Amino acid sequence: MSDTPFTFSIPTPSFIPTRMDNHITRRLSALRGQFRDQAAYEAMLEKEDTLIYEVYEVRRPEKAGELLSGISIIHPGKVGSEFFMTKGHFHKVLETAEIYYCLHGEGFMVMETPEGEAAVESLSPGKVLYVPPCWAHRSVCTSRQEDLVFYFIYPGNSGHDYGTIEQQGFRKLVVDGPNGIEIIDNPRWKK
Amino acid sequence: MSDTPFTFSIPTPSFIPTRMDNHITRRLSALRGQFRDQAAYEAMLEKEDTLIYEVYEVRRPEKAGELLSGISIIHPGKVGSEFFMTKGHFHKVLETAEIYYCLHGEGFMVMETPEGEAAVESLSPGKVLYVPPCWAHRSVCTSRQEDLVFYFIYPGNSGHDYGTIEQQGFRKLVVDGPNGIEIIDNPRWKK
Repeated sequence: MSDTPFTFSIPTPSFIPTRMDNHITRRLSALRGQFRDQAAYEAMLEKEDTLIYEVYEVRRPEKAGELLSGISIIHPGKVGSEFFMTKGHFHKVLETAEIYYCLHGEGFMVMETPEGEAAVESLSPGKVLYVPPCWAHRSVCTSRQEDLVFYFIYPGNSGHDYGTIEQQGFRKLVVDGPNGIEIIDNPRWKK
Repeated sequence: MSDTPFTFSIPTPSFIPTRMDNHITRRLSALRGQFRDQAAYEAMLEKEDTLIYEVYEVRRPEKAGELLSGISIIHPGKVGSEFFMTKGHFHKVLETAEIYYCLHGEGFMVMETPEGEAAVESLSPGKVLYVPPCWAHRSVCTSRQEDLVFYFIYPGNSGHDYGTIEQQGFRKLVVDGPNGIEIIDNPRWKK
């Protein structure tokens, strides 16, 4: 890992960075229990373990003062009426922020605090989202055909806590309703 | 200052963020002693205190775990043969990194460590630059007509140290030579 300055590009239309140290792919099987419609999930998984999202990470030492960054690409699709989304997580060091710079597509960031505060912000190209310390975050792609793409940056010592969210999901769900996108309460979520 | 998530946009072609808490403007008079050609500097200043660069800051608490970000716009121009540039600085907490995402124009980042290592990286739209901890950084606009614009992100506790650079400038200068851009040694710089 270089300790001298380095550059990389984020070329369109692929958005795959010209430098990356890790390519994570998350398929449907990695999101078991997260989608509301379990029957739709199982039926879909039986057909194919669909690729839901990808992350290209640019590695740096995982310590305070460093910044970790990369590209997330969430593909379009639904499980039942619920849009494809990331697993979502708190940071292990809870008091660390994250910045998302949206490059392509449309979607939402679903967020919440351990105290049960919830927030949902829409994402579109050229928009920056500030996720303050202590807010868990999950991105949701609501495009019909396009990927949702963003460049993310967070402090090097943040770490990830996926377990808390896996227990009962986020407080809010983003679903395709009869009259368009709906943000609804998650029936599984209990304070 | 909100502790809930927030968004803002970076619209083209102005690149002025739709949310900003501070607008810094740096004119020629603020860069006294930084350009090699002192006579050209004084002659230019006598005519007009030209606007060299602008920074739009999005404020957050200045502490570890938070991220500070904003837009820098360096205007095109020269003092003698030396391109317009920012003052440049170390972070007060030396072991903090910074990320630059170039949005428009062309230029360079001139960097160095307290030990005298030097690095110069070119910037163009879609390019990300990682400035590792301990590297001072100054941006230089080499466009003839266009602004150099980037979105910057750094840890909330970084702080700024301008004084060290003010003493003798950076080790490298970016000048307009007879055959194009030249990166040369700064005659004023001594280890």
